[in-house]
Amino acid sequence: MLDPLLDKVRIVLVNTTHPGNIGATARAMKTMGLTRLHLVSPQGFPSAEATARAAGADDILARAIVCDDLDEALTGARLILGTSARARSISWPELDPRQAVAEAATTAGDVAILFGRERYGLTNKELQRCHYLVNIPSNPEFHSLNIASAVQVLAYEMRMSRPAAGETEKPREDLLASAEDMESFYEHLEDTLFQTGFLKTGQPRVTMMKRLRRLFNRAKPDTTEINILRGILSTIQKPKNRG
Amino acid sequence: MLDPLLDKVRIVLVNTTHPGNIGATARAMKTMGLTRLHLVSPQGFPSAEATARAAGADDILARAIVCDDLDEALTGARLILGTSARARSISWPELDPRQAVAEAATTAGDVAILFGRERYGLTNKELQRCHYLVNIPSNPEFHSLNIASAVQVLAYEMRMSRPAAGETEKPREDLLASAEDMESFYEHLEDTLFQTGFLKTGQPRVTMMKRLRRLFNRAKPDTTEINILRGILSTIQKPKNRG
Repeated sequence: MLDPLLDKVRIVLVNTTHPGNIGATARAMKTMGLTRLHLVSPQGFPSAEATARAAGADDILARAIVCDDLDEALTGARLILGTSARARSISWPELDPRQAVAEAATTAGDVAILFGRERYGLTNKELQRCHYLVNIPSNPEFHSLNIASAVQVLAYEMRMSRPAAGETEKPREDLLASAEDMESFYEHLEDTLFQTGFLKTGQPRVTMMKRLRRLFNRAKPDTTEINILRGILSTIQKPKNRG
Repeated sequence: MLDPLLDKVRIVLVNTTHPGNIGATARAMKTMGLTRLHLVSPQGFPSAEATARAAGADDILARAIVCDDLDEALTGARLILGTSARARSISWPELDPRQAVAEAATTAGDVAILFGRERYGLTNKELQRCHYLVNIPSNPEFHSLNIASAVQVLAYEMRMSRPAAGETEKPREDLLASAEDMESFYEHLEDTLFQTGFLKTGQPRVTMMKRLRRLFNRAKPDTTEINILRGILSTIQKPKNRG
């Protein structure tokens, strides 16, 4: 994999207490294509629990770099981002995850994103190493986001920011029915509904056909679908096996 | 809390195997301000593990609605979204999480987002209940996203969409037909098409009904429109003025 953004980002977990969170972080990273994990003085790593929660992302764990202090984990990093709950005593430039990823994408060189301790996050001293704080918007009454979930959100934004992400909405393979096919269908529909007695002559008929046009236009049927619908109408007009 | 988007969304977990994932889902929801959790035949719930992983979001667990089947969980839902890994055999309209949240924000009435089993997600039959599949972009070589992480990503997008929600795009005024009304319509449609001889028994019937579901789900009919369509079906079944 060669990706200009994903390859230059390292995730730095500072003093993580629960090995399960390290494993879940590795999994969150790998699902989005991130590979570089730095662990500053983690508790209980490596561990079976981390491997279990990694659920197949154990290659990320195996390549994780365990560091004694933050300096070591930040070696070579250019842009440093620190995740933080809002309303810190420290006043520091703040970005939301989408802005942070845009900043990372337009910065040359390595990017480090810091995630703090389960209980109290990053210290003010650690936050002051950062160019920006990253604030994940959350419920003001409950902003206790799990660390691996915070990594997931940032990693997801990185994945979304890639050019390929815009291609998730696959264009429909079949051509939409042509304007004239749609008109023929509506004529056929109106004839059939008149024949069955659903439509009578007069104004309600016009209003009803307008409603049905709105409904079927919204569905944007393709050529095959219009053929199916017309097949149905033909069978209604001349039922062969009516019971 | 009164929020036009967050309040109308229910998270539906289908046949979740690990109670820890249910707890982590509750936490992911609460951090972003979501409150409504429906559980379809969960394994081992309630449980101490779910409560531990909820980490303070146990009010969400306490209010979770445990359902016997998907129909029950979807009662009253208008827009139905199903999360899915890419490259399904089923071809169905797909949105990325951001597009899905935009769709939810501009739809009147309740929204259900479905998350499938840990091992194999949602079945094709379950996916066919959905208006859209939601595909979270991921590493093609490792797209095994944890369920609670998937919930986190969707919930995060909802939180991110809030300031603009309700201001820019006006929701459609009419309520979409409810999940149960849609099912009744499809049953009525299938009966009618069988009666007219358009459908015969066997596999083609299943395939054809799938195609028709895709077409009508795409149109997202409202309550009035479904009543019109059912009126048409009734007239076809018992034509009064057949010429």
